[in-house]
Formats: sequence, structure tokens, C-alpha cells
Amino acid sequence: MKRNLFAVIALLFPAFIMAQTLKNPTLDELMWGGNKYWTLQPEHISTAWWGESLVRTGVDTCSLMADSRGRAVASSKAFLFNRDEVNAVLRAASPEDTLRTLQYAAFKGGKQTVVRLQSDKNLFEYDWKRRQITWMQPALRGTSYREFCAASHSTAYIKDYNLYVRTADGKDLQVSHDGSRDLLYGTSVHRNEFGIEKGTFWSPKGRFLAFYRMDQSMVTDFPLVDIEVDSTTQIAQLAPEKYPMAGMTSHKVTVGVFDPATGKTVYLDAGDPTDRYFTNVSWSPDERYIFLMELPRSQDKCELVAYSAQTGERVGVFYTETNARFVEPQHPLSFVPWDASRFIYQSERDGFNHLYVFHMEETDGKLRVSEERQLTSGAYEDLELLGFNTATRSLILVTNESGHIRENVYSVDFNTGRRTLLDNGVGVHRANLSPAGTLYTDRWSKPDVFRRMELRATARPQLMQTLQECESPWREYSMPEVKGGTLTAADGKTPLYYRLVLPVGFDPARKYPTVVYVYGGPHATNVKESWNYQARPWEYYMANRDYILFIIDGRGSGDRGFDFESCTHRHLGDVEMLDQMQGVNFLKTLPYVDADRIGVHGWSFGGFMTTNLMCTYPDVFKVGVAGGPVIDWRFYEVMYGERYMDTPQENPEGYASSSLLNKAKNLKGRLQVIVGYNDRTCLLQHSLAFLRACEDAGVQPDYFVYPGQDHNMMGQDMIHLHERITRYFDDYLKPAVK
Amino acid sequence: MKRNLFAVIALLFPAFIMAQTLKNPTLDELMWGGNKYWTLQPEHISTAWWGESLVRTGVDTCSLMADSRGRAVASSKAFLFNRDEVNAVLRAASPEDTLRTLQYAAFKGGKQTVVRLQSDKNLFEYDWKRRQITWMQPALRGTSYREFCAASHSTAYIKDYNLYVRTADGKDLQVSHDGSRDLLYGTSVHRNEFGIEKGTFWSPKGRFLAFYRMDQSMVTDFPLVDIEVDSTTQIAQLAPEKYPMAGMTSHKVTVGVFDPATGKTVYLDAGDPTDRYFTNVSWSPDERYIFLMELPRSQDKCELVAYSAQTGERVGVFYTETNARFVEPQHPLSFVPWDASRFIYQSERDGFNHLYVFHMEETDGKLRVSEERQLTSGAYEDLELLGFNTATRSLILVTNESGHIRENVYSVDFNTGRRTLLDNGVGVHRANLSPAGTLYTDRWSKPDVFRRMELRATARPQLMQTLQECESPWREYSMPEVKGGTLTAADGKTPLYYRLVLPVGFDPARKYPTVVYVYGGPHATNVKESWNYQARPWEYYMANRDYILFIIDGRGSGDRGFDFESCTHRHLGDVEMLDQMQGVNFLKTLPYVDADRIGVHGWSFGGFMTTNLMCTYPDVFKVGVAGGPVIDWRFYEVMYGERYMDTPQENPEGYASSSLLNKAKNLKGRLQVIVGYNDRTCLLQHSLAFLRACEDAGVQPDYFVYPGQDHNMMGQDMIHLHERITRYFDDYLKPAVK
Repeated sequence: MKRNLFAVIALLFPAFIMAQTLKNPTLDELMWGGNKYWTLQPEHISTAWWGESLVRTGVDTCSLMADSRGRAVASSKAFLFNRDEVNAVLRAASPEDTLRTLQYAAFKGGKQTVVRLQSDKNLFEYDWKRRQITWMQPALRGTSYREFCAASHSTAYIKDYNLYVRTADGKDLQVSHDGSRDLLYGTSVHRNEFGIEKGTFWSPKGRFLAFYRMDQSMVTDFPLVDIEVDSTTQIAQLAPEKYPMAGMTSHKVTVGVFDPATGKTVYLDAGDPTDRYFTNVSWSPDERYIFLMELPRSQDKCELVAYSAQTGERVGVFYTETNARFVEPQHPLSFVPWDASRFIYQSERDGFNHLYVFHMEETDGKLRVSEERQLTSGAYEDLELLGFNTATRSLILVTNESGHIRENVYSVDFNTGRRTLLDNGVGVHRANLSPAGTLYTDRWSKPDVFRRMELRATARPQLMQTLQECESPWREYSMPEVKGGTLTAADGKTPLYYRLVLPVGFDPARKYPTVVYVYGGPHATNVKESWNYQARPWEYYMANRDYILFIIDGRGSGDRGFDFESCTHRHLGDVEMLDQMQGVNFLKTLPYVDADRIGVHGWSFGGFMTTNLMCTYPDVFKVGVAGGPVIDWRFYEVMYGERYMDTPQENPEGYASSSLLNKAKNLKGRLQVIVGYNDRTCLLQHSLAFLRACEDAGVQPDYFVYPGQDHNMMGQDMIHLHERITRYFDDYLKPAVK
Repeated sequence: MKRNLFAVIALLFPAFIMAQTLKNPTLDELMWGGNKYWTLQPEHISTAWWGESLVRTGVDTCSLMADSRGRAVASSKAFLFNRDEVNAVLRAASPEDTLRTLQYAAFKGGKQTVVRLQSDKNLFEYDWKRRQITWMQPALRGTSYREFCAASHSTAYIKDYNLYVRTADGKDLQVSHDGSRDLLYGTSVHRNEFGIEKGTFWSPKGRFLAFYRMDQSMVTDFPLVDIEVDSTTQIAQLAPEKYPMAGMTSHKVTVGVFDPATGKTVYLDAGDPTDRYFTNVSWSPDERYIFLMELPRSQDKCELVAYSAQTGERVGVFYTETNARFVEPQHPLSFVPWDASRFIYQSERDGFNHLYVFHMEETDGKLRVSEERQLTSGAYEDLELLGFNTATRSLILVTNESGHIRENVYSVDFNTGRRTLLDNGVGVHRANLSPAGTLYTDRWSKPDVFRRMELRATARPQLMQTLQECESPWREYSMPEVKGGTLTAADGKTPLYYRLVLPVGFDPARKYPTVVYVYGGPHATNVKESWNYQARPWEYYMANRDYILFIIDGRGSGDRGFDFESCTHRHLGDVEMLDQMQGVNFLKTLPYVDADRIGVHGWSFGGFMTTNLMCTYPDVFKVGVAGGPVIDWRFYEVMYGERYMDTPQENPEGYASSSLLNKAKNLKGRLQVIVGYNDRTCLLQHSLAFLRACEDAGVQPDYFVYPGQDHNMMGQDMIHLHERITRYFDDYLKPAVK
């Protein structure tokens, strides 16, 4: 009798059965940083290219997966070498040393049977055929940064604020001597804007080292405080951060070139560095010239400038791009492998990021560089230039030509510009191209495919091997249905992409509390045609707690062209909010969305959006959680801030109208602001000033901080944070338990 | 019909009628800092003594209230002078100057018809009979401190870290020259412990100025940050605070004596000031000697040391008191007016604060000081020595001899020690004694009397006049019943006093959420026999929102003798919590207390107690709000911290077991920690370290900060804060609304 009743219930309510038989995932399982995260993830296959052959680099073993023509290798012939063999040879040379893993093995090209490896005590090269160490150096200690140059076996490194080079034969050459917190050498500059991610640039053959030098003595300190104390430090310590705020005095950057052979440095003769940006350091293949892209502080112009690497002489300005809003170069030059006189320049100047062929030549010792032709065009974005297939004279790149939220691999014929789709044309693909560009590994997913890893050719669309097929690791867990769709932006024409995550056991007759997750700022996207439309683990967690999640990428976000991203110029937040409200209006048409229980959550720019939405639409959003928010763009840094907002002096109205200090008084719902106490990107001043404004206005936000954390939470704090965010919505957005 | 029904309801539920007819008080009305606070308070009568006559000092008028024998003055004879008269004379001497109020008029004694007044531009003396200004000086500008000496008409003041004296004839003499943030002159020292409230001490006749000099160059800075920015300061500024933490290097204090006549300073020859405290600076009446009470850092000893004011020579140690726990001198010497060779020394050495008569004499130019006799004794506390009645040779003081939670005025016969109760023997009395000690104004209240102001004699118990009778300003508001009572401490014998605030419209058949308000630390009391047993405004507010409030003063708190207060030595929190739990156990016996909804709230030491109780009894307290809490005594300062806890090196177990960092993991209920972001007393490090511990332990406290606020909230933030505290209990302690 009981069994029958159960069967009837199961028939009528299949979700009931699911809920009974499937596990609810925990944050510890779902999130990176969780203790159980890795136990559930499918095996990660790490690979490396040995010439055009593909090697699987396991912890213990390196074995061939494909030969240089992409063909599978019989297992009997696949084995190359294992870690025990290496360690036996290593320890003979360096007692008590240990190589921990082969995963990061770097293979020499051609027929050489040599890999570069890093053990506990040494950096070395090992010939697995001869079973001998062919080169060895003690590992560097006490450095804050290192960049190894494979061509010269030299390492650039930073120690106590000064830049050094360790040569192939183990000599340590000191490049700078006056480094300090005020004067940095070899570090990333301009707060990592303009595509800058590092501060050392080896020349192609490794003979020279270009490097950044940043004088920030004139930049104000923000008084960050390190409160974490131990037995030796009873009292908190000041940990100041040089932080140039919008409109304030900025740092001064120059570029030096060090010659290890002479021990001498020349600085590029760029003139007064005040209020200028120097980015995308590029070497000519012959190591004679360095190209910089140079912007004035106003960021409305970008010049391509060549310098003599030998003398530092400014050879000339060879190309200039201007834009009334801003120019944002993000890619260094890519020299064409089969023609050292031609390089690829990337620009958004026609409205979308595309490739241009430039030609350089020397006539009577005089360098001339000129634009030759536009190679790609169309209302889509070239997202990543992976490299070149030298044999076919083509470029291999990732674009979203197949669809706004897709990322596919294409080849582009260098001469004709003809584009050929190389993959299946759907979903999102991450590619790793072989050195000569004939093959690539393709890790991809689409909304209903969790993950595939394939080996593909580039000469023509061809699947060589399927390397891995991963099913979702969540089959034994209750997981939500995720729907993708499009809406129209507030301009009445632009299509926007959204993701709707339905609660587990979704019942369309019920009304659910709904949380809008938002980022909304430049460079980023939240909705792609990848697995579950790029749903984030926390969304699965919330869907298991009877929430609907909604995410839409509005104007101002990335990958949709210059105008889509820059239409927010000088008034950040306004257009972005209008498009989020398009999403909210859509949600209100859904009978299963409880329009009285709409919440919003976002981090960083999304924290700005969340706070802004809570204060601008106080009757729409009942609950918000704003992480690391920008509150007033006056408190943000020069490079990013002035690109989108100009300076406070130039755009006082824009700064005033976007300042959430002025909107704090409108707050009605429950808003929790959460920050990393040691946030070096979006300073504590934002959230504290917002609290002060709320206190003065007599409104009541909530607040939380993570001492020791920077702009984004790391490790177990990610779990703690998401428990916290969830609890806040549980407390205030959910209907009271009956 | 409807009216009849209403009448029946009114008959059955009188509280229903009250709720209909009385107003609910707002925080803005109830609390100091609220916009409507002063509109509801009864008129404050400000008075001053003119000799033994009592003057009412209004904003506009000064008039006699009583003659020198305490008799009422006929209104026709009462008028002395008004502000318009003064301003007319003032402006003739100083154009466009204004005297704003007469409330702070300081009368010369005897028959002189002269008052000292401070106008916008001048400090001056005015003879109201002759209608002329008899002395005048421009007001000091840009000083951080001033102390005027009426005897010499000189002012000590601090400007830019240096100490100055402005003489009666307007000369500015610079006392110190090397003042800085590291080296302070004339300021309070030792973080205001040991009764220290200031740093300058004029000699009785005003010929010399003794002052503190504090070298804190060796003290670590705590990196406080001032985030409040304006148009001129876009980025937050460091505002470091010299803060010696328990066990760490402390400052060094010396005492100087400046002679304005010579411009020279001598320093008292106290020897190496390292790890020593110098307190209760007292001048001998003849200005020849300065007495200090000196303690070693261990605070287990106090020496009474005399110095020559002329030479700084250390004349001798004349009295030593020791205690294995601590000695805490809090009162300077009081010389007997009719006998310059005798002074009153106060000590807790017999277990209660009492008075001792000391004798000093010079024989052959050699000073001798000795204890003569104990003047008061008994199991009660001498709380405040108001002064002396010279005519009757008696001391006038406030004690709690009539009852632990009472404060009454007594006279003590100097020769016989006989004590005479001067007031009504109940309630709490605040007295202001006349210069010759024959009369005093007595502002008093008791649980059922809101406030009375009387004029009383000291020669014998005699009410001379009733000056003011104030009824509660809350008669038109719904106000709770407040009950007082006693319980027995966890030691099974000591009586403890509590206050129970019942909800407005109390229904004994209901079950109410209940909040324990707690301080619990030394020096303080929360329950006195004053109006409503000293109930705080917020308690009235909460009682209007259906809460019961409960407050009990346990062992470790003040006014109950040395052992009561110091039994917590080396393990702060333990005994204090046991006694709070006696209160909770009592609450659980009350049928109208909802034992599942008990909350706790406190500030400072009370924040420590709140956090401690939440983490120690996680199944008892459902919700807590901890303001400005101490979290780990290692982060508290040397003087207070080591008195009660010794150093971390001496008492590692005590520090470890009282550290809430170690207890954070036990948190189960909802706990909100609230702090002033610029708290210089209980540093931000406490709360941030607690958050870090909670995050590491995976428990979830809540947090809030008030940027710009110090240890205690000021102004409108007090209202915001109490809205916030109330909301937190509403959110989590109250039953869900049906």
C-alpha cells in the first residue's frame, strides 16, 4: 500500500523522486576553494607539444598522445619517460633533490629528446633518451618574480625591488641598483591596464632584456593595514599601497633595455613620461627595434612608435589611431613567421577588434613602417590570435563570428583573408596551438555538452582524435535546468543574451524569489554558449534552495564591439542599469517569478551595479549583496577610471551623477556590502565612504569584511563568502517559513 | 454598539487604552544625540556659587537663588545683571565682540561683584556693580588645550605639541620647544588611567605650573585611517595612534615644573621613567612640594613620593602600599583647609575606598610625612570627597553607606570621624558644594522620583530650599514598568542588583523575547537606586517594542569594594559571565520570559562580555550585539590591560583562555559586532581579528562600522546605531510576524 502511494506520487511528481534520490551539492563541492571541489572534477589532462607531436604530461609519466600528423600512437609506443627515471639521474647530480611532477615539462622542439624541468632545488634540462642532465642551475630563492628565456637559458628576476639577470652559465647580473617601493624595476605597470601583465620582455633570441621602470614616488599612498598578527607581530602593521586616484598625480614609466653581454642598460628616449602610458612592448624579429604603443593620459590617441634597441633612439611614429571616447590597445605586434618584414596589428578602429597587416622595411638604414591592409573585418570580434600555420600561410584565431556568445577557432588565409571555420561552429572553444601551427587541442563545451577535448588540424577542418569526453560530474546531484535566451536592450534594437537558472524541482505554478547576478562592466561577459550558458557554481547552489537566478549581459560589457562596450563613456552605470531593468521587466512577465522578491548580487563592477540598482530602483530590488563595490569613481585609479569617466575635472557631472554617495539616501531594501579588507584594486575607502553616507542619511546597509583578502576572495573564504551571501538572501528575500 | 464593545475591551485590557492614548517615544526623542532630545528634557537650571550665595546663571540673566545662609531671595532682590548690560560694556572695549551666554559665569568670592566670562574674542572679568571690565585678554586661538588659573590669571595651553603659558598681563611664554607626536607636553598621560584626566597642574597660588612630559617615540603606532575626505583630500589619510599593547614597550613620563617668573623648568628627579607610572600630581599648599603617587609597571605597589618644586630633588618616599593583585590610586591628596600640615589620602587598602589623615612637618628643613589615622571605615565605599566645611571642621563626601546602589551625601567630623547623613538617605545624589562648604545643591532621584534639585546645609541635615521638582517628561508617552531586585552571585553569597524592564502593555500570560544588557567591567555600575533604577533610554524604546530588558551588575564591576571588583584578576570574563548567568537562570524562572529568545548586548567591556557569552553559552543566547569589543587582551593597552591581566608573558594561560579568537569557533547564534572605525581605545584590530577567526572557523558573525567615530558614538550616529541594534533583535530575536 505504501509502495503504491509512493509510485503514484512519483508518477505525478517526478521532481519529488529526483529530490529523494539525488544529492544536494554543497558549496564545498561546487566551488573552487572548497575542500571537496577537486574530488568531483573530471580528470584534467595536461599536455605539451613536442614539436608537432602531442605529449600527455602526467605527474609520473610523459607519453605520446599523437604523432606530428595528429595520428593516435599505439600504447606500446606511447611511453617516453617517467619521473622515477628523472629523479634517479637528478639525485646523482644533486643529492636529496626531488622532481615533484612532470606536468609542467617543457619540450625542446625538433628531434631533440630534451625537456626542461624544475625540481625542488634546480632548474635543469634532461635528455630522456640518453638519460642524462644536459644543463642545470640552482633554483632561484627569495625572488618576487622570474621569467625564464628558453632561447638564451637566462632568467630575469626581481629581488628586493631590483632587477637581475641570471645567465645560462649561472652568473647573476644586477640590472638596477636603486629599486625601492617608490621605484620599481621589471614589474607590471599602469595597474595592468592596456593588456599589460608583466614587466620583462626578452628579445626573440634572448640576447636582450627590455623592462619597465616605474617611478611612483609622486603617487599618494593609500594606508592599507595588515591586521593579521602572529607571535612576533602583536600589533597591526601599515601596508601602504601606491594608488593614483582619478585626476590625481600618476606614476612615470620608462622602458629600459639591458644587454647581459655588456652589463649596460639603455633607456628608450621617449621624452617626458609624465601622464603617458607605454604598452605592448614588442621586439622586431632581428632584435634591432622595440615597438611601443603610446597613449597620452587622455587615452584618446594611440601611437605606434619604434625605438632602436641599441641606442634607445626614437626612430619614429608610424601609425596613429584616435577616438573621441578612448583607444585601448591590448595586443602586442605579432610578426609573421615566414616574413620578418610583416606583422599583425590588432585594432577596434572599425568598431570591432580585427587584424591589420603592417609592413616594415629599411631603406638606407632608415626604418619605414606602414599599414598594408585590413586582414579581417565584419560585425564580430577577433578574440584571440593563437598563432600561425607556416605551411599554409594562415593565421589561427578565435572569433565569435558564428554567434555573439560563441567562441570558435578559424584559420585566416594571410594572402586572401579567407576565413575557414575549423571547429564544430557551436559552443565555446579553448585552443592550444602546436609550434608550427598544424594542430591544436580543442577543449570545448556547449550548453548540453559538459566538456570535450579534441585534437584538430588547422590546414582544413578535421577532427584528428577525441582526447577526452567528460560527462557532467553532477549526475548524482540535483541540478537545475538552465535556459538561454535573448532580450532587446533598452535602446530597442540591440540583442542581449541571458541565462535563466530554474530551481531544482521547478514547479511553474509556484512563485519563486529571484536573484539577478550582475557584473555589467567592460571586458567581461557572463553569458556564453558554454556548458549551461556559463552558469556559476553558486547558481546551482541557489537553485537547490528554491531560487531562480537570472543573468544578462547588457551594453557596456565585452566581446560585442567598441560601441556596445563604450556607449557608457562618461556616465558609467546608467545604460548598464537600463539594460538590467530590461531583464527585470522580462522576469516580471514570468508567472513563476515572485516580483515582490527580486534580489541582486554582484562583485567589483557588479558590486557598483548592485549598490546602484538598490539605490536607483529601491522599490524593485528587495535585497542586494554588493561585493568589493566601486562607490565613487573619484576613488578609483587613473588608468581604468579615466578611460571610462575622463578625469573628475573634465567630467564633474558624470562623477557626481554616478557617485553612490549621493544615492545612498534612497536605500530602502536590505543591502549587504562585502569587501576584502586588503583590497588593492577597489580600496576600502569606497565601502567606508558609503557607510558614512548611509549613516549621515539615516539609512541602514549591512557590511562585512574579510581581513587579509584582496579584491577577490581566495581559498576557503570563497565558501564562507557564499554561505554568507546565501544566508542573506535566505534571511530577507525568502518568504518566511510557514 | 461599537462604543460599548470598546468600553468592554478597555475594561478588560487597560493597557490597550494606554497604547491607544499614549505616544510611542522615538529614539530621536529618547536619546542624547537625537534631534528632539532637548525639546523633551526638563529645563536645566545652571548655578554658580558667589561665595556661599547661590546664583542662577541663565543664558541672559544672573540672579540670586539663595543668600549665604541658604535662604530664598525675594524676586525683587534677586536680579544681579544681564547679558545685554555686559555686551554693551564689552563692545565698547572690543567692537563686534559678543558674549553668548552667562551660563558659565565664574564668580569671584567674598564681596567682589566680579565674574569671569568668555566672549567670542576675549576672556575677561566684569564688575557688574560698577559695570566695567576689570581685566581682559584676547581669547586664545589654535590651541589644542587650555587651563586657566584663577589665582594668577594665567593660562597654560598647548599649541602644535608644545606647552605655553599666557600670563595675566598677556605675555606668551614657551615652556617646551621640542614637542612632537613623539614627545608630548602638558597632555594627559598613561592613557588616562590612575585617575589622570589632564596634564597641567597649577600650584595653589598659581606661581608655578607642573606638567607632564611624555616620550612615546618608542611606542608602536597603530595605523588608524581617516577615510573622511572632502574636495581637498581625495584619498584617505593615515592617522596613526601611539598605542602600547600589553607586554609591549610603553612610553616614558616625567613631570616638569615651570616658573613663569624665571621662564625656567626643572624636572622632578624621579630616576629612570622606564615602565613606571606617575600619577595624582598634588601640590603642597605652600607650593614648595609636589607629591606624586608612583607605581611600577607591575602595579602591585604604590609609593607616595615628595619632590622639591624648586629643585626637583626627590625628598623621600613617605608611604607605600602593596597588593598582590594591584594598587589603583585614583585621587590626589586633599589638604585640609584649616591645617596646611594635614591632608587626606584615599586608599582601598582595607578592602573599601576610605579616607586617611596624613601629617606632614618640616624639622630642620627636613620634610617628614606620616600616616596619622584612618578617618572612615566600614564595608562601604567613599565615592567622592566633595570638600570641607571649614567652620565645622568636617569633610563632605558621597558614599554608599546607606545601600550598595545608593549614593548619599555625608559629613564626616575631622576629629572624631563621626558620620552624619545629610540627605534623605535614599536614591542617588549629585552634589555641588559651596566654597566654604556650608551649603550644597543636591540633584537627586530615586526609582519613583524623576528629579529633584534642593539646596541643603552641611552643618546638620537641613533642607534649605527645593530649587526644582521635575516630573518625568514621558507622561504622555507609553513607558514601561521598571523593577529593581537582588539575586545572589555565583559564589552563593554576594548580593547582586538587577533591573528588569517590562514591556509596555505587559501581559504576564505572554512570553517575551528578552535582552540582557551588560557592561560587567571594572569602575562601572549599571544599576543604581536612581530614576527607574538607572534605566537607559534604549530600554524604554525596546520596551515599546515588546521586549523585556534585564541588567545586572555582577562581580568585577564597581562601587562594591576591592575584592568584588578585583576577583576577576588574571582571568577577565570568567567570573563576570558566571554572574550574568545567575541573571539568565533567574530570567528562565519567569513564566513571561521566552527562554528560547534571549539576547545580549553591550559595548566596550560589555562588547567583550557579549561576544564571550555568545561563544561560551551558544545554546543560551540566540542573538547578540557587541559594540567596540575587546577580543583579545593582548591587543589592549598596557595600563588598564596589565592591571587586570598582568602581561601576556606573566599570564599566558589567562590571555589564552580569555581570548575570543579561540572561542570564535563556538558561535552559533546571530552576533553583530559594531565598532567605531577610528576607535583609539579599543582598536579595530580586535574586531577584525575576530572576523578572521570566525572566517577561518567557518562561522558567520555580522559586522558594522562607523567611519570617523571613536570608541563611543557621538551625535546622530547614536540614533543610527540604536536603530541598527534594535533592527537586529527585531530581525532575529523576535518571533516571526504571524
